[in-house]
Amino acid sequence: MNARTLDTEAYFIEREPYYEPTGDEVAVFEAAYRNKLPVLLKGPTGCGKTRFMEYMAWRLKRPLITVSCHDDLTASDLVGRFLVKGGETTWVDGPLTRAVRTGAICYLDEIVEARKDTMVVIHPLADDRRTLPMEKLGLLVEADDRFCLAVSYNPGYQSVLKDLKQSTRQRFVALEFSYPSPELERKIVVTEAGVDAATAEKLVKFAHMTRNLKGSGLEEGASTRLLVHAGKLIAAGIAPITACRTAIAEAITDDAEMLAAVQELSSSLF
Amino acid sequence: MNARTLDTEAYFIEREPYYEPTGDEVAVFEAAYRNKLPVLLKGPTGCGKTRFMEYMAWRLKRPLITVSCHDDLTASDLVGRFLVKGGETTWVDGPLTRAVRTGAICYLDEIVEARKDTMVVIHPLADDRRTLPMEKLGLLVEADDRFCLAVSYNPGYQSVLKDLKQSTRQRFVALEFSYPSPELERKIVVTEAGVDAATAEKLVKFAHMTRNLKGSGLEEGASTRLLVHAGKLIAAGIAPITACRTAIAEAITDDAEMLAAVQELSSSLF
Amino acid sequence: MNARTLDTEAYFIEREPYYEPTGDEVAVFEAAYRNKLPVLLKGPTGCGKTRFMEYMAWRLKRPLITVSCHDDLTASDLVGRFLVKGGETTWVDGPLTRAVRTGAICYLDEIVEARKDTMVVIHPLADDRRTLPMEKLGLLVEADDRFCLAVSYNPGYQSVLKDLKQSTRQRFVALEFSYPSPELERKIVVTEAGVDAATAEKLVKFAHMTRNLKGSGLEEGASTRLLVHAGKLIAAGIAPITACRTAIAEAITDDAEMLAAVQELSSSLF
Amino acid sequence: MNARTLDTEAYFIEREPYYEPTGDEVAVFEAAYRNKLPVLLKGPTGCGKTRFMEYMAWRLKRPLITVSCHDDLTASDLVGRFLVKGGETTWVDGPLTRAVRTGAICYLDEIVEARKDTMVVIHPLADDRRTLPMEKLGLLVEADDRFCLAVSYNPGYQSVLKDLKQSTRQRFVALEFSYPSPELERKIVVTEAGVDAATAEKLVKFAHMTRNLKGSGLEEGASTRLLVHAGKLIAAGIAPITACRTAIAEAITDDAEMLAAVQELSSSLF
Amino acid sequence: MNARTLDTEAYFIEREPYYEPTGDEVAVFEAAYRNKLPVLLKGPTGCGKTRFMEYMAWRLKRPLITVSCHDDLTASDLVGRFLVKGGETTWVDGPLTRAVRTGAICYLDEIVEARKDTMVVIHPLADDRRTLPMEKLGLLVEADDRFCLAVSYNPGYQSVLKDLKQSTRQRFVALEFSYPSPELERKIVVTEAGVDAATAEKLVKFAHMTRNLKGSGLEEGASTRLLVHAGKLIAAGIAPITACRTAIAEAITDDAEMLAAVQELSSSLF
Amino acid sequence: MNARTLDTEAYFIEREPYYEPTGDEVAVFEAAYRNKLPVLLKGPTGCGKTRFMEYMAWRLKRPLITVSCHDDLTASDLVGRFLVKGGETTWVDGPLTRAVRTGAICYLDEIVEARKDTMVVIHPLADDRRTLPMEKLGLLVEADDRFCLAVSYNPGYQSVLKDLKQSTRQRFVALEFSYPSPELERKIVVTEAGVDAATAEKLVKFAHMTRNLKGSGLEEGASTRLLVHAGKLIAAGIAPITACRTAIAEAITDDAEMLAAVQELSSSLF
Repeated sequence: MNARTLDTEAYFIEREPYYEPTGDEVAVFEAAYRNKLPVLLKGPTGCGKTRFMEYMAWRLKRPLITVSCHDDLTASDLVGRFLVKGGETTWVDGPLTRAVRTGAICYLDEIVEARKDTMVVIHPLADDRRTLPMEKLGLLVEADDRFCLAVSYNPGYQSVLKDLKQSTRQRFVALEFSYPSPELERKIVVTEAGVDAATAEKLVKFAHMTRNLKGSGLEEGASTRLLVHAGKLIAAGIAPITACRTAIAEAITDDAEMLAAVQELSSSLF
Repeated sequence: MNARTLDTEAYFIEREPYYEPTGDEVAVFEAAYRNKLPVLLKGPTGCGKTRFMEYMAWRLKRPLITVSCHDDLTASDLVGRFLVKGGETTWVDGPLTRAVRTGAICYLDEIVEARKDTMVVIHPLADDRRTLPMEKLGLLVEADDRFCLAVSYNPGYQSVLKDLKQSTRQRFVALEFSYPSPELERKIVVTEAGVDAATAEKLVKFAHMTRNLKGSGLEEGASTRLLVHAGKLIAAGIAPITACRTAIAEAITDDAEMLAAVQELSSSLF
Repeated sequence: MNARTLDTEAYFIEREPYYEPTGDEVAVFEAAYRNKLPVLLKGPTGCGKTRFMEYMAWRLKRPLITVSCHDDLTASDLVGRFLVKGGETTWVDGPLTRAVRTGAICYLDEIVEARKDTMVVIHPLADDRRTLPMEKLGLLVEADDRFCLAVSYNPGYQSVLKDLKQSTRQRFVALEFSYPSPELERKIVVTEAGVDAATAEKLVKFAHMTRNLKGSGLEEGASTRLLVHAGKLIAAGIAPITACRTAIAEAITDDAEMLAAVQELSSSLF
Repeated sequence: MNARTLDTEAYFIEREPYYEPTGDEVAVFEAAYRNKLPVLLKGPTGCGKTRFMEYMAWRLKRPLITVSCHDDLTASDLVGRFLVKGGETTWVDGPLTRAVRTGAICYLDEIVEARKDTMVVIHPLADDRRTLPMEKLGLLVEADDRFCLAVSYNPGYQSVLKDLKQSTRQRFVALEFSYPSPELERKIVVTEAGVDAATAEKLVKFAHMTRNLKGSGLEEGASTRLLVHAGKLIAAGIAPITACRTAIAEAITDDAEMLAAVQELSSSLF
Repeated sequence: MNARTLDTEAYFIEREPYYEPTGDEVAVFEAAYRNKLPVLLKGPTGCGKTRFMEYMAWRLKRPLITVSCHDDLTASDLVGRFLVKGGETTWVDGPLTRAVRTGAICYLDEIVEARKDTMVVIHPLADDRRTLPMEKLGLLVEADDRFCLAVSYNPGYQSVLKDLKQSTRQRFVALEFSYPSPELERKIVVTEAGVDAATAEKLVKFAHMTRNLKGSGLEEGASTRLLVHAGKLIAAGIAPITACRTAIAEAITDDAEMLAAVQELSSSLF
Repeated sequence: MNARTLDTEAYFIEREPYYEPTGDEVAVFEAAYRNKLPVLLKGPTGCGKTRFMEYMAWRLKRPLITVSCHDDLTASDLVGRFLVKGGETTWVDGPLTRAVRTGAICYLDEIVEARKDTMVVIHPLADDRRTLPMEKLGLLVEADDRFCLAVSYNPGYQSVLKDLKQSTRQRFVALEFSYPSPELERKIVVTEAGVDAATAEKLVKFAHMTRNLKGSGLEEGASTRLLVHAGKLIAAGIAPITACRTAIAEAITDDAEMLAAVQELSSSLF
């Protein structure tokens, strides 16, 4: 077992993560960071938002504290709570508070999934007040100068119920992410999955075919991550068509007709 | 780390906040304050309601206690609760109670987002009784003469479910806020973002274009705050068109067509 | 700070409240009180139901315990609950129980807003049993002979979900409240706001104009309370048209067209 | 203050309640009681179901424990729960358990309002098992031979959501209650309100007029209880028309047209 | 008071229950029991499912632990929970765990009423694993060889929301129950209610008439249990027509027209 | 009673489970396991997904920790929680944490039934981070190299509300399961139920008839498990037609017409 305590030392990214920029996102993030503006990352699943955050944390030499948001994530989960130990009540900081105090980057992944009180607790941190009210402690914490707030969400999923209110989103500098260019994606698959360039090229072509089906029966096309999965299976000796079926086709849809159509596409390539 | 305890000393605004009045709002707020009438601020996000409250708190020399309301904010969060410490139960005042006792200004931001019991707890404070019943303590607290209650909300967002009941709203003097005039907004962008007047003028023009699109595909136009964000990115060396895209366009919409239309507007300006 | 403990001494109304009767409501309330019948007050917001209760409490020389009802008000909030203090569990009476035991008037404001269990807990108090079962204590408390139960609600707001069941309402003597007559309302505005009779007359005329708009775009007309607010702002030096806009028009509606129409009405008067 | 502890002595009805039988309901209830069959009372509000239970309890010389059911009434509220006192956990029987153990009559008023788990907890008590499983105590209690379960509901109110399941209702002997005959109702009003026979006759006529309006704008006609209320106000010197308006008309409807129609009816009588 | 502790001794059925088989249900249940297959009983209310379980428990000489399922029944209610007593936390087995450990028959009555987590907790008990995971204790309990799981539900009541998932139902051997044959039902009524054969015959005829009305205004016909109720009232001296009305007609419907129709049927018989 | 403590020794599969492969599923699972990719099993109930997991756990010589997911399964149920014992608070690892620490296979059965926070807690375990954040402990646990995450669901059941989000499913290698081929299924029934080949063949034919009815009135066809049940009843002496009715037909449907049709099918075979 390998456990790291949550003092922020453990949250520094020690090795440069493998990240290939797709535009001016690094410069904009840095300018926002220097101006103490919070950042919003938008884009589909598996296109590299998390990797980008790891890269920026390494580049800015700040610890990265990531919180995956969900329906039951409350403000207390972020800010902290009292725990009773041996009859004594002691306060335990939540991940957001640790980031605010120590000047870390706090990354709230899929922010719209969180409960509404979570949105509101970040409001005073996401404007020029940069303060975190901790009602239960009776404290108003001013963020460390090096603190940075980043959030992400996937606009393709938003429903009426799960919407980012204008009063929330109009506090952020927003960066849109998308799939990498074919050349870049090929390079990523070769590097990460350990397959040859020809196989990587076919996988990228296959991915593009699925992405063109988005909206015509597919909720979402294959992400770069799935190409890496398929590549790894191929590298491990699995037949390419089986690898495409199990790592890509079955992972993106359950529809029998769509599965048959997608399988035909991969048969035409391999 | 920089933590201020919640004794109200910490809530005094020490330096005059930068606020440019847009009408008679300062005089009306002062008259309401002198007559012990509560105040309701209405208006879109990012148009300066929070800054106005900071300005009035500084002007009236009263501490300002701000509570961002949300779905899970209960009356107890405002009034206070018992906490168990070392086997002993001790009472901890909530932010509203602290304001009531010490004569501070309590500002409930986006009041309609709060739970219904929150609305009701302010009723006896918002008429000529000016009392706060603290059922759990067995106390009926009369508000300090200098106490002031202010609430805000954005009428543009109201749904049937989240409505301010007549029995609540007919207790307040109501002030409507809107975007500043072009000259005033230009002045604000120059002062806050540190860009030259020409750039500020273009940003203000761009903002007006987006505000005209409200209702035709945009939920809300760009706020003054976003202009300041874009200005800061430009001052940090980011190309104006990129700054407009990431600080303004992407922050107000996810719609691909609308983003393209908005980008064309900024291209025509920069 | 000025806190009164909740022993019922503090709930006696010491000075005669300013109340102008509008019909036989005082006689009917007294007859119901003498016959130990509970009373239901119906009527729009701000028309004087709370003031009437203060007046009757003063007249009958009984303490008045008011509870503003809301979505999260439970039977326990009314009856009482166990609190843990220093390892010991002690019972704390709720406001209804205090009224039942000491012979006070318990006034449940906007009863339909409360949770359903609240309705049911008052049933045995609101018929000839006049008992309060306190399940958690194992007690059945007979009400003091001087105890009186009064509840209010605004029929204009009722939805299907928030209805007073026949099994509840057929326990009460019901009094309907409405706005005072013009002469009476003028007198109230002069007395409470400190403006001259001419200004008060114009304000009352303005109120009647808004009340006629009820149902044609206005949810509710201006209450007497709002006239007093506007009068106080005028007495503090605010221009009458500004006072009417901020204290009355903006307080009753957010609709831009309706606001314009209402402003024209006030311009024609002042 | 006058509190009776919940040992069942306090639940014996000491004086014969005033009850006028309307059919064979007394004989059927007694036969069901002797055969240990549970009883279901059906009928509109205020027609005497509660009084009948008091009468039968007096007649059968058994204590009567009444529970008004509501949305938040859980099985634990009926069966009992653990309370922590001074660090020790002690069990406190709920009202149903007390009745089961001591052979009292347990009357669950408006049973369909209770939560579904409440229904189920009475199932093994309402068939020939006559047992109460107390899971939390690890006990299976056999009901005392003198125990009797009675429940009531108003079929006129039932919605799809609040339905008595066949698996519940097919355990009971069911008695339907309705308003008393005119002669009987007149006698009740004279006896209970202390008015003369002529006034009582007019009140009963008035009640019948309202009952004929049921379904044509009135949810429910005036109950016998409301006639007694009006009679008491008249006996206290209130004008009959005012008494009919406040004790009857306003208590059964909020609809302005219906109120006018009902007032015309009372004007034609008094 | 007569309380039996929940050690399983108390759950043995000591006397042979009166049960009349209607087909091969006894043989199938025994074969399923010997093969350690769980059993599902389907059928309308009051047709003898509970009695059958008592009979099989007596026949197989195993204790019978019955749990009536409902909306708020959680997995913890079945498996067990920690209770705090005198500062110490002790584990208390739930009824399912007791049955699993001691080899009893656990009968979950109206299983579809339970919460979904209850369904899932029985899955590993209802296939060839026959294990009960007790996450909170850190134990995986293998069922005693004599343990048997039986569940029941009434297919006539199922809604979309309350459905037995295929992944649950495809674990059980299923037995369908229905009303007994006329001869058998007559015998049951004579034996249980103590009426003569002629009366029993009329009651059975009456029951069949109501069962034919199922779907034409009646949700469910009269169960055998209701015939026994009516028989008992008749044996206690209540007139047969009154007995049919209160024990049968009023117990199965509230509809006035249907009640009249059903009463005519009984008048034609008695 | 036979309880195994939850140290992972107890979770090793000691004997080779009886599993008949249907395709390349064993090779793909092994390749995914070696590449540390999580696996998703899709398919109808009772077709062998659980058995496959037992087989792979035996083959890979890793402990298998299975969690049946349901509506109330929270992240804490998987990760662990604090328990208070004798005044001391101690942490107890949940099943997922035990698997992560000790390098076991964690199998989340019917993952879409779990609450949304459960989905999110597995995200950082299901990509190349392979970490489990334990917020309440202040620990970030890196998974043991031998840890493997597997989840299952039945695509046939998915509703809009219970959907596997693309951001979740695009992390897994997906394997589709279906019913075994006729020869294979016959072999399984003979081996597991102990019937002769002729009976097994008829049962398999019967199963195929029901599977063809899927979508034409049957929600799902008979699973292999049900064939084994019927075979066991037949081996215990129950008539084949009765065995088919109780073990298969009644287990898959409640519809009277469908039951009759299915019974005709079995009559034609036996």
